[in-house]
Amino acid sequence: MQRICVDMDEVMSDTLGELLRRYNVTFGESLRPEDLAGKGIWRGTPPEHKEKLGALLNTEEFFEDLELMPGAQEVLRDLSGLFEIFIATQAMAVPNSLGSKFRWLQRHFTFIPADNYVFCGSKSILRADYLIDDAPRNLRAFAGQGLLFTAPHNVGVEDFLRVNNWPEVAEYFANIKSR
Amino acid sequence: MQRICVDMDEVMSDTLGELLRRYNVTFGESLRPEDLAGKGIWRGTPPEHKEKLGALLNTEEFFEDLELMPGAQEVLRDLSGLFEIFIATQAMAVPNSLGSKFRWLQRHFTFIPADNYVFCGSKSILRADYLIDDAPRNLRAFAGQGLLFTAPHNVGVEDFLRVNNWPEVAEYFANIKSR
Repeated sequence: MQRICVDMDEVMSDTLGELLRRYNVTFGESLRPEDLAGKGIWRGTPPEHKEKLGALLNTEEFFEDLELMPGAQEVLRDLSGLFEIFIATQAMAVPNSLGSKFRWLQRHFTFIPADNYVFCGSKSILRADYLIDDAPRNLRAFAGQGLLFTAPHNVGVEDFLRVNNWPEVAEYFANIKSR
Repeated sequence: MQRICVDMDEVMSDTLGELLRRYNVTFGESLRPEDLAGKGIWRGTPPEHKEKLGALLNTEEFFEDLELMPGAQEVLRDLSGLFEIFIATQAMAVPNSLGSKFRWLQRHFTFIPADNYVFCGSKSILRADYLIDDAPRNLRAFAGQGLLFTAPHNVGVEDFLRVNNWPEVAEYFANIKSR
């Protein structure tokens, strides 16, 4: 059975949405995702806000209640009958997220066993056929076929096969299966 | 550069020593590691103690102050100049350990970047040349060359290349490098 690794933040969960909400409250701004096209929140906000931005993210509770990306649950449930699904998330840069990321997965993706969670740093460690990820650097490190999941920060990046949303992920793997 | 994955519990840290200490206090016993030869603590203690045993292990603080296995630091420091070292630990069965395992690594293995930590379940996900692990099931799942690190529970297992301690690990990789 072929194996698909799936990134969490901005692929399974709307991490940017929650971070923007907290950022706007903290700094009294009204930034929207589309304001960050081609740069993302780290390059799209003033350098002097970086420290606070990191602190907003690296808490036990930030990852607890993230919204699901539309279709993530349904498409992954379908794919889990046809592929081996692993979750591969960069958790080591925000170590306080480890517990809440675990609980979030347990709550929303009951059909994926905890044995298939990978909390890592470098995604070069993954032995898998596919990786769905929003970060070009993760896809570059990965040894298999990468799929770039569209997020504001990666708009304009052209080096990868791109999927814009979960229905497009479903379509890509339906084509793989029918080949 | 070739890549070595290293398991934490009973390879880098004396997890069994600490668990036995707590077990003996809890149940008023005086079990020693050698009493568990060929079975380990899970099969070497009464079934009615299993639940409590699991609870002793799955706490935030259990993994915080584990002793180092003799030689682990020194040998890994030397090897880290010659190989890419990743830490690969099964943390998903004891999710409360995630934070303390991270902090333990940061404290004792400053020369290994957090980017090279992998908190996982199935070790079939690891893309690496070598895995040093005390659990036969992990070596069986691993796609590269496995090295069975001796622990009471695996005494008598004969299906793997065995290393009894960290000096033997150093010797094995010195031979690889001189070939």
